[in-house]
Amino acid sequence: MKKHPIDSLTTVTDLVLPGETNPLNNLFGGELLARMDRAASIAARRHCRRIVVTASVNHVAFNKAVPTGSVVTIEAKVSRAFTSSMEVYIDVWIEDRESGMRTKANEGIYTFVAVDTTGSPVPVPALEPQTELEKQRFDAALRRKQMSLVLAGRMKPNDAKELKALFD
Amino acid sequence: MKKHPIDSLTTVTDLVLPGETNPLNNLFGGELLARMDRAASIAARRHCRRIVVTASVNHVAFNKAVPTGSVVTIEAKVSRAFTSSMEVYIDVWIEDRESGMRTKANEGIYTFVAVDTTGSPVPVPALEPQTELEKQRFDAALRRKQMSLVLAGRMKPNDAKELKALFD
Amino acid sequence: MKKHPIDSLTTVTDLVLPGETNPLNNLFGGELLARMDRAASIAARRHCRRIVVTASVNHVAFNKAVPTGSVVTIEAKVSRAFTSSMEVYIDVWIEDRESGMRTKANEGIYTFVAVDTTGSPVPVPALEPQTELEKQRFDAALRRKQMSLVLAGRMKPNDAKELKALFD
Amino acid sequence: MKKHPIDSLTTVTDLVLPGETNPLNNLFGGELLARMDRAASIAARRHCRRIVVTASVNHVAFNKAVPTGSVVTIEAKVSRAFTSSMEVYIDVWIEDRESGMRTKANEGIYTFVAVDTTGSPVPVPALEPQTELEKQRFDAALRRKQMSLVLAGRMKPNDAKELKALFD
Amino acid sequence: MKKHPIDSLTTVTDLVLPGETNPLNNLFGGELLARMDRAASIAARRHCRRIVVTASVNHVAFNKAVPTGSVVTIEAKVSRAFTSSMEVYIDVWIEDRESGMRTKANEGIYTFVAVDTTGSPVPVPALEPQTELEKQRFDAALRRKQMSLVLAGRMKPNDAKELKALFD
Amino acid sequence: MKKHPIDSLTTVTDLVLPGETNPLNNLFGGELLARMDRAASIAARRHCRRIVVTASVNHVAFNKAVPTGSVVTIEAKVSRAFTSSMEVYIDVWIEDRESGMRTKANEGIYTFVAVDTTGSPVPVPALEPQTELEKQRFDAALRRKQMSLVLAGRMKPNDAKELKALFD
Repeated sequence: MKKHPIDSLTTVTDLVLPGETNPLNNLFGGELLARMDRAASIAARRHCRRIVVTASVNHVAFNKAVPTGSVVTIEAKVSRAFTSSMEVYIDVWIEDRESGMRTKANEGIYTFVAVDTTGSPVPVPALEPQTELEKQRFDAALRRKQMSLVLAGRMKPNDAKELKALFD
Repeated sequence: MKKHPIDSLTTVTDLVLPGETNPLNNLFGGELLARMDRAASIAARRHCRRIVVTASVNHVAFNKAVPTGSVVTIEAKVSRAFTSSMEVYIDVWIEDRESGMRTKANEGIYTFVAVDTTGSPVPVPALEPQTELEKQRFDAALRRKQMSLVLAGRMKPNDAKELKALFD
Repeated sequence: MKKHPIDSLTTVTDLVLPGETNPLNNLFGGELLARMDRAASIAARRHCRRIVVTASVNHVAFNKAVPTGSVVTIEAKVSRAFTSSMEVYIDVWIEDRESGMRTKANEGIYTFVAVDTTGSPVPVPALEPQTELEKQRFDAALRRKQMSLVLAGRMKPNDAKELKALFD
Repeated sequence: MKKHPIDSLTTVTDLVLPGETNPLNNLFGGELLARMDRAASIAARRHCRRIVVTASVNHVAFNKAVPTGSVVTIEAKVSRAFTSSMEVYIDVWIEDRESGMRTKANEGIYTFVAVDTTGSPVPVPALEPQTELEKQRFDAALRRKQMSLVLAGRMKPNDAKELKALFD
Repeated sequence: MKKHPIDSLTTVTDLVLPGETNPLNNLFGGELLARMDRAASIAARRHCRRIVVTASVNHVAFNKAVPTGSVVTIEAKVSRAFTSSMEVYIDVWIEDRESGMRTKANEGIYTFVAVDTTGSPVPVPALEPQTELEKQRFDAALRRKQMSLVLAGRMKPNDAKELKALFD
Repeated sequence: MKKHPIDSLTTVTDLVLPGETNPLNNLFGGELLARMDRAASIAARRHCRRIVVTASVNHVAFNKAVPTGSVVTIEAKVSRAFTSSMEVYIDVWIEDRESGMRTKANEGIYTFVAVDTTGSPVPVPALEPQTELEKQRFDAALRRKQMSLVLAGRMKPNDAKELKALFD
């Protein structure tokens, strides 16, 4: 049975307290990576309803520092499902206290694998993207997976059809 | 300008890791109280868009233990606004991994005060409840406030009209 | 065998370090709630010498902010024992470094239940208050319990005799 | 003045304690990401002797779970310097207690930017790789940077010469 | 004005939660050292009512492991005052849940220096021991100080009169 | 088989973040004691390849405060092996960001015991110091052990030959 990205949407809204900052009084990068990992693993678990383990962090861009006292919202959704792995896309927003407006601060992409209790990979449901953005991320997920395999020497560049198409 | 409870809805979905448990391997009560405080303070801030400080915890019921590895969702919404204080109602849910069903685990009620940068209380917008449950909580909030003042000796029982009505 | 409040007195004197503060550089409310929970659970355990679990937080008033660098003393004592539950009253003090004088900062009331290893409630010893303050808290504990049951819809207001008496 | 990868080598050997694990009793992924960030930022700082901020996590592969009680060694070295950014390559090893042998558990690639005290990027010294492995990582770093720009839509695929060459 | 050890007595009773243990499920040594430091610094501050900084840990003996779920009581008292430094003696007890009996688990000796706001040492009041145990610790404190100076090469063994007397 | 101090060398380079400081914004003493304990226990484990437990902290001197944002390097090496215990010497350095120069900040001496899985002490390999400094520390370790036994009343001063020699 197919599932949609919205089925795995996981929202975490939290404060940045002084004990979670770096010496510039912004949210410490490592702490943000950890919070993204927690949110993304819940999204992956909601997609497949199995035990999931983090397989890789594919990309995290720190575009904007998040100062002490900020309200930060992390939104994680599965962006593509493969045989037993799932790519999760994570958006991080900061909310202005006075206007209530929120600004995109960072984003990240993590991959999880569904496993049984012995740790062996198990199949996960397919994902069907619905919104325009979900479709773009779904398509890009395949190229990211190919790129990752190519750079790791586990796929020949010429077999990475969708990725290669970018360069033609 | 009136605001609705939904305007302040704050959702925090998170894991329970082993470092956050008590010796029975359930989420440590103090850790849950802290997480509820973080979520509730964001809800209060979203209602009034001012700096807020915790004034009191009015009630928290621990009905169900939350075991290690659980996915816990905290939902906080302002339940009533007074002159410069806001009561926030917090529901805590556990989610079953296999069925995806969620069960109510605990609930809590916290009060926050809006302050300016010198720490003096400032007025907050009124709250207009919309759903049946929001209306019940809105009404009960007044009785809770009266009870709290009566028990603290700061209001005469006979002046607590809505509360007194319960006993007639 | 009856026990006295003094038998369960639990004292925790500790510092407020920067990693435990909110963005105003005062002790973070959630951290204080957690410290109170730890102290109160020890008091409950000392009263009954059984395993205890937090059942509820009945009230915590944050009257005074606790700045970074403060020395904070938490004192917890059982204020009333019911069949298998115990109300614990917690006083929080700040100590002035130069004069050594201490000021009341906050107070809180938590309830714990004594359980056996299967988690079933077990009876606890009765409590006999001794000082004037202990007697007042002992009496108020009954009204608080009734209020809590009434507000939760688990006791009819007219059955809450001691509480109702306040309004006559 | 050119610098070598060895000049920035940063070693962190540490334990995995129970408070740092996930529910499977292995080092929690987010905690490992945070430790890698700390180590890598020191390596970047040693290369350029300026303030550095995390710009992105390019890749982290979790190949092997790290159980409670393990001794983990993180080694971070700058793998390539660009104008004001530095790619840092991080290897993570587990050490067997009885034999003393160490096994590769994970690896990761982070990018940092050197800034002045106003937060503006400043140039960093060039890096000259020395060992075979350092040279491979140096070359791949350019392709990774291009891939990252291409996937983000900030470079045309045909301008990514070294990356494109993979597909010819 | 002379002060007595009892004037600085600082008591910290706390739990051992799973997030504070080592892989054998006992309180992690480093965590206990940190808790002792917090308690001892408060004792020193209470003696002199000045800012105090940890100068050294003179000795800590870990005689007995402290298992998860234990109730631990730390008691710290100034054992001797020198010109601007104070030795603090710390006793650590574990309490049996069923009998309420407490057993000595560890002890430690820390030294603090009183400083003004520029960090320069300032004089502290003299200490007059009262109980037999306080007198023994007071006398031994001088020999410990001499031993520490001798081993650091900052006092000639023959000038350490009280210490030397042990060997005659 | 004899081992050398270098075989157990354990290096931990880490940052000081704001959540790890005291109210003067320097690394909190207790946090440093905990980090030293972690590093030293790994050094002891590397020497004997057995489970090790902290037996005592013999001395830690806090000579220099370590401000927020510092890069701190802890180096731990076994300084002497006895029957089943090992003394570990720990040096702590701060690194200047601009010059890269490092300064000694603190040092500490901890003792560990090797145990089997039932917790009984087991013999450890002998240690053969190589450098001048290692030899000095090796010799002093015996006197420290004697001093510790004498002050604890478990050795007669006149039996502590090497220590007594200091006073002749």
